[in-house]
Amino acid sequence: MCQLLGMNCNVPTDICFSFEGFAKRGGKTDDHRDGWGIAFFEGKGCRIFLDAKPSIFSPVADFVRHYPIHSTHVIAHIRKATQGEVILENCHPFRRELWGRYWVFAHNGDLKDFHPKDFNFYQPVGNTDSEKAFCLILERLRECFPQNKPPKEKLYSILGEITQTLAEKGTFNYLLSDGEHFFAHCSTKLSYIVRQAPFAAAHLIDQDMTVDFSELTTPSDRVAVIATTPLTDNEVWTPILPGELLVFQDGLPHKFP
Amino acid sequence: MCQLLGMNCNVPTDICFSFEGFAKRGGKTDDHRDGWGIAFFEGKGCRIFLDAKPSIFSPVADFVRHYPIHSTHVIAHIRKATQGEVILENCHPFRRELWGRYWVFAHNGDLKDFHPKDFNFYQPVGNTDSEKAFCLILERLRECFPQNKPPKEKLYSILGEITQTLAEKGTFNYLLSDGEHFFAHCSTKLSYIVRQAPFAAAHLIDQDMTVDFSELTTPSDRVAVIATTPLTDNEVWTPILPGELLVFQDGLPHKFP
Repeated sequence: MCQLLGMNCNVPTDICFSFEGFAKRGGKTDDHRDGWGIAFFEGKGCRIFLDAKPSIFSPVADFVRHYPIHSTHVIAHIRKATQGEVILENCHPFRRELWGRYWVFAHNGDLKDFHPKDFNFYQPVGNTDSEKAFCLILERLRECFPQNKPPKEKLYSILGEITQTLAEKGTFNYLLSDGEHFFAHCSTKLSYIVRQAPFAAAHLIDQDMTVDFSELTTPSDRVAVIATTPLTDNEVWTPILPGELLVFQDGLPHKFP
Repeated sequence: MCQLLGMNCNVPTDICFSFEGFAKRGGKTDDHRDGWGIAFFEGKGCRIFLDAKPSIFSPVADFVRHYPIHSTHVIAHIRKATQGEVILENCHPFRRELWGRYWVFAHNGDLKDFHPKDFNFYQPVGNTDSEKAFCLILERLRECFPQNKPPKEKLYSILGEITQTLAEKGTFNYLLSDGEHFFAHCSTKLSYIVRQAPFAAAHLIDQDMTVDFSELTTPSDRVAVIATTPLTDNEVWTPILPGELLVFQDGLPHKFP
């Protein structure tokens, strides 16, 4: 299994505080040592930092922890391999282009007896169940909407259907974004918190570190942080229900019927 | 215009020495200040570091300069914008997946009156002529070989045809690789050097720095470095002829009829 961390906000924000605690789970406070990765959207552009090394020993992770990149859509992942070797091409998040936008995906879970072969537009590069699932998601979205991105309700509805089919194969918690929309699907375990005014101090679980967000924010800022398990011990995190697909925008979660 | 730097070798090698000189051209010894990027293949995996900041001021470039990533296929680029704003999605190298491998592309030049619209499989995310050309190259390769990568002679031949068509639009020096093959096309200016035993010392042009490769290599190592203009002043660089497409493998250039 693995762990997920996501962030969606209404103004570009750095994820240094959350990543500080999260990265500790890659070998120190937890055993997700088989590589890690983080994707930052900046407008339509996207940067991904990856390493097959455990995040606690990775010089790249060390750089990311100390270099504040401001982004409205961030997806991070620490890996504990269930399928596929510990090599760079199996590190999440994965990225492909669809409708002239980059799509980024990270998965926590395990899809059993999952050997799809009929890849057409998108082929996996590595050999994880996760990348295969990602390719199938984009493949199906593309089949349904060949040329352009559909309105968000339609996208949500088709994505929900694809997700349900894939989730029948096993545990399928995931984060997916194109820098405009941010989807979070809970199959077994995923929580979020929305930080907004009045901001307060937050204290990490995985490290004795506190940040007072009231000193770093303006009253109109809103930031949603999504994680496999809560990252702080003095705030109330909301569990996403198993089977639930949320789409975050400007730091707020939405669901469509 | 921009500048290109590439490396292809028979054993994974770090590019720190060459990148040290090259990065200086992004605002110090030359004026390519509009962002930069570098892609490293590690097996089938690929990491790209990008920044819209000038490479001489970029903390990401600083990290790359000091962190030796060992790779057999590296493509780097410093940008002087001719088309498209100075934003992350316009920084080279660009990456897409084709035949289950990542393909990475960087361009030096300028394609005039170039407004292709008929993108099918691959759509540009940013608005440079370079990314459009890259999408068209992959599009055409995919049309010719829908399922699998063809033998290298066939690939070379079709790529040569596409390249020729695109080069009619303007200056089209480029580097293109999938981590297995490494293509270098010269339209106006591109040189290379092959370093192999007996290794000697090399001295950078853009900075007073010397490395004695005989201390860092084994006798069977072979490294080709490809750059817009030579990076060292005490070695003999070979200019690639205008119109010539080379494919490097294990540090040696090849051409096919």
